[in-house]
Amino acid sequence: MALPVRTNFRNVSRFIQTSFSSVRSVCAGTRCPENQEPPGDGRVFSGIQPTGVPHLGNYLGALENWVALQNQYPLVLYSIVDLHSITQPQDPKKLRSNILDMAASLLACGIDPERAILFQQSKVSAHAELSWILGCLTSMPRLRHLPQWKIKSKQKNEGSVGLYTYPVLQAADILLYKSTHVPVGEDQVQHLELAQDLARIFNNCYGDVFPEPCALLSSTRKVKSLRNPSAKMSKSDPQVMATITITDSPDDIALKLRRAVTDFTSEVTFDPETRPGVSNLVTIHAAMAMISVEEAVSQARGLDTGAYKNLVTEAVIQRLTPIREEIERLKSDQAHLEGVLARGNRRAQELAAPVLTEVRQRVGFC
Amino acid sequence: MALPVRTNFRNVSRFIQTSFSSVRSVCAGTRCPENQEPPGDGRVFSGIQPTGVPHLGNYLGALENWVALQNQYPLVLYSIVDLHSITQPQDPKKLRSNILDMAASLLACGIDPERAILFQQSKVSAHAELSWILGCLTSMPRLRHLPQWKIKSKQKNEGSVGLYTYPVLQAADILLYKSTHVPVGEDQVQHLELAQDLARIFNNCYGDVFPEPCALLSSTRKVKSLRNPSAKMSKSDPQVMATITITDSPDDIALKLRRAVTDFTSEVTFDPETRPGVSNLVTIHAAMAMISVEEAVSQARGLDTGAYKNLVTEAVIQRLTPIREEIERLKSDQAHLEGVLARGNRRAQELAAPVLTEVRQRVGFC
Repeated sequence: MALPVRTNFRNVSRFIQTSFSSVRSVCAGTRCPENQEPPGDGRVFSGIQPTGVPHLGNYLGALENWVALQNQYPLVLYSIVDLHSITQPQDPKKLRSNILDMAASLLACGIDPERAILFQQSKVSAHAELSWILGCLTSMPRLRHLPQWKIKSKQKNEGSVGLYTYPVLQAADILLYKSTHVPVGEDQVQHLELAQDLARIFNNCYGDVFPEPCALLSSTRKVKSLRNPSAKMSKSDPQVMATITITDSPDDIALKLRRAVTDFTSEVTFDPETRPGVSNLVTIHAAMAMISVEEAVSQARGLDTGAYKNLVTEAVIQRLTPIREEIERLKSDQAHLEGVLARGNRRAQELAAPVLTEVRQRVGFC
Repeated sequence: MALPVRTNFRNVSRFIQTSFSSVRSVCAGTRCPENQEPPGDGRVFSGIQPTGVPHLGNYLGALENWVALQNQYPLVLYSIVDLHSITQPQDPKKLRSNILDMAASLLACGIDPERAILFQQSKVSAHAELSWILGCLTSMPRLRHLPQWKIKSKQKNEGSVGLYTYPVLQAADILLYKSTHVPVGEDQVQHLELAQDLARIFNNCYGDVFPEPCALLSSTRKVKSLRNPSAKMSKSDPQVMATITITDSPDDIALKLRRAVTDFTSEVTFDPETRPGVSNLVTIHAAMAMISVEEAVSQARGLDTGAYKNLVTEAVIQRLTPIREEIERLKSDQAHLEGVLARGNRRAQELAAPVLTEVRQRVGFC
């Protein structure tokens, strides 16, 4: 029964659009005053790597926010950043299917290709071109301490040139559309600062072209690993039981939450510092049931953590089922997904072309 | 009188085409067996930065060779590599005019746009795109000891990301056209080795796409600085009197050669080790008069170095005058130069497009 699923899904997205309306004003990039640009003039850019299915942390930390933003800004671009993904080894067939799967996930989570331009980064050649130009304005030491390199190059200087220069391409992604607002997690703030610096450096060298993009730090809850609640929920976590993906079956969700690490106190309270495990469950419950943390704790009154896990499981299943079903439906129609991306790619190319032409002229290439 | 100049110029080029026919067999890239590819199947690529007028060293070390190669290989591409030039700060207006001036210089030196594809690197977006992909296959330490970085980053790690990753873009330039032969100076052999390595690495990861390009080490004479004959003649030499550019006036040529450093022995001999100054004059004389070194020494018999300098001056003026006049003629017709480049850009784009499509498919982008 496709129709009820899609109706559910639409209701969910409408809820997100309403409940996240507060996000837009959290404009907190360094050196960017709050509300620097009214949304009426803003251009939003963000990207996600096509590596695996988004998990609860991605959904609550970024994608819900993306859905809200597409209704608040006149121009919103979301890119499946495949050029970034090859900074780590990828299997080509898997990468190709991951790109379409990510498109399906984003659409199922509520990204509306009529409101946001959803596109594949590698299809817009201007990203790599602008990245080269910006790389000529970036000093080598500037990149050495950025999170991407520090985390992923296992030992100092052990990664690839692509991994090292990743934040320059990220800056190009943002500046290519003269983006003014970039939804980021806290771990990406330093990368956005590089984009801000490069906008300033370019403008100083060649005259004003780029606005300095501003960080939109979403106020969403941080979802932790179910196995180690002191760490973020992460795609790269080797423990399968640590993350809930948005395509997990009800049984998997129930099993993972049953196994979630808590503590020896049976009462449910929200205290992330001293009780990270049970507090993570409260966070997930509140976010999934679209209620406040206080309301979640109040619903848990009288339940021990075991019984409370069932309540959380119900909330997660109820929220993720329509998304999972919508992903399945979309994945069965590859031509539709390819069509959505092709349209987005064209629109992104059309926006990028005049900016790159302006950049080329300023640099002296034409 | 444009016609006689062009006639002269054609005679000169015809001579170069004949006298350099030996160059093609000097296929000496590491791991590349001699005569690996017969010229009948070969694709030649080389590039030159649009930074200032070529000097005698460029002309004799590279450009004469380029002219010869365009008649020996079925597909020859010569690129004005403006993306490379911005790894050092450039004035945009100057860069723009330098691109057209370099096109004029190359045409005047004998590059025939009917035989070789003469194009502007930044107009073919696939260079930057392939460079990104190859950068993801290049380890950071691999680039640290390459000449470009060691020479130009004044202190270790002080240059830009562009300067550091320059050899990766160079590899992309070459591989993008599935080039088999690359005319290089000895100082570029290590950079070509990176292109060879990256062809192998890519082929290992994704299946055979790129031939391993082979170095064509030209056997041409090495021209030294007129002020310090132990060093190469170089564009970046701060001493104006050290280099003769191909657009120098007869008076300038005479003055620079008169001031050329020699030694206290008045007889002219050819012994680069013990008498680098006078031997450099013999090299220049032989190359410019299109005679052997022995013939040049024989012509110098009975002359002291002062009188010999006049003979060398005559040979240089005679050779460079038609080139200088042709450059002036070409520079006065900007539309023609732009047309030549536009045609070359289109042809290069047409060759690059299917290779990039193949690369994208192999990597998993489509």
